Order: sequence, then C-alpha cells, then structure tokens
Amino acid sequence: MSDELGFEVRIAASPNDTIEQVTEALKAEGFGVLMRIDIDQAFREKIGAEFRPYTILGACNPQLAHTALTSNPEIGLMLPCNVTVEAADDGSIVRIMNPAIMMQTDKLGSDEALRTVADDATGRLRRVAEALRA
Amino acid sequence: MSDELGFEVRIAASPNDTIEQVTEALKAEGFGVLMRIDIDQAFREKIGAEFRPYTILGACNPQLAHTALTSNPEIGLMLPCNVTVEAADDGSIVRIMNPAIMMQTDKLGSDEALRTVADDATGRLRRVAEALRA
Repeated sequence: MSDELGFEVRIAASPNDTIEQVTEALKAEGFGVLMRIDIDQAFREKIGAEFRPYTILGACNPQLAHTALTSNPEIGLMLPCNVTVEAADDGSIVRIMNPAIMMQTDKLGSDEALRTVADDATGRLRRVAEALRA
Repeated sequence: MSDELGFEVRIAASPNDTIEQVTEALKAEGFGVLMRIDIDQAFREKIGAEFRPYTILGACNPQLAHTALTSNPEIGLMLPCNVTVEAADDGSIVRIMNPAIMMQTDKLGSDEALRTVADDATGRLRRVAEALRA
C-alpha cells in the first residue's frame, strides 16, 4: 500500500491477538479506540455474504480531535482515524489511515491549524506502525 | 462547505430529532448506521473539555461496501461513510461525506471497479442530502 493512503503492517498473529496489539500500540501514542465494526459479521447478517475476518477500528486522540474540530468542524467527516485488521493466510494485515489524506482537499489543505494537527497525528500513527513492525 | 468534501444541510430541528431524520433518509438509500460516536461526550469523559453536541454516524450500504472491499481491501480505511450532526443556534448542521474523496489518491483513483461503486454511493448520498433539504 502506498503511504499516501495509510501504513500497512503484516503481523504473524490471529486477527484477535493483532487487534489487542494494535489497541495497545495506539494507546501508547494517546489514541483510544472509540468504535469497532466487524464488517464480515455485518455482511453476513445484512446481506448473507461471506467475507474473511475484517475489522474496522476507529482510533481517536481526544486532544488532537478537539483541536481539529475547534479549528474546523468539517473535519468530523474524517474522524476517527480508521485502523483495519484483516485475516491473511499467514496472520493478519493491519492498515492505519494516514491523516495527511484529510488535507488533500483544497479547502482543508489551506487550513494551517488543521495541518499542524494532521502532521502531529501522522507522526504518531507512523510510530504506531513502526512499533507494530518491531 | 465545498461539495468536494461533503454535502451540508441545515435543519431546523434538535440534533436528536435530526439524527432520526438522517437515519431514515439513509435507510431509503440502502445505508444502515453501523456506528455512532457522540464526540462531545467523549471529550468530556476523556479530557474534561466542553464541546457543543456533535455526533458522528458511520453509514454503510452493505452491498456497495462488500463490492468495494472485494475489489480493494484498502478501501476499509475510508469506511463507513461519515455523517455528522452538529448543534447550531437555529437547529442542526448535517454533513454527509462525499465518497468521491476516497478516489483522490492515485492508487484508488485508478481502480475502475472502485470508481463505479464510489459513483453509485455518491449519487445515493447526494439524494439523502436532497431529501433532508426538502
């Protein structure tokens, strides 16, 4: 995956164990998990379709989110930061959204306060990816 | 708000009543609400900071999401589609994410199957905004 969209890490552990590791690594950078969607279960229940285990976690650093929403309430459309955990043959694939993607629109991209927050969040989430790779 | 990021609608109703209207309008276009975050409550609990009532809803059309994730699992970083409801002096402000924003990265933007799904989702969410304006 190109870093433009997010940071990808392969982990030799089950999705459930990986979700625990990811949650701890996020916590170390000040991000809590505000929501969890097991999308494979949603597919099964709602349209009877099968999908491999695939979980979407919504990670939020409350201080950064508060600063961002105070600066521009439109940023709520991109919060929380998604982290996905997907089953793979040899373990799990983790993907962590790069908050820089929020800044690609002309309007948000020109908001300096928002850019500072996004840069901070990007640095933290890069470190989460590095911690998971270690 | 520029349509690039999302569709904004002002509603002369309380946030709670507006959330009900939004949920119904989404349902009419095949979107269920998979998650809800009352971010003002999260700020109060986690950092003791005040914020006006501001709710993030995660809307998902399971058929479109299944097609999108089957085509490219990276799209999970942008799912579900956020809809925010914010208290305003004269009622509420609704913002609905424009799924076209997902396609702005080079890699996803060149995925034709994904583009078809994103166009479909964009059309549906535009109609949700129009229904709320009516």
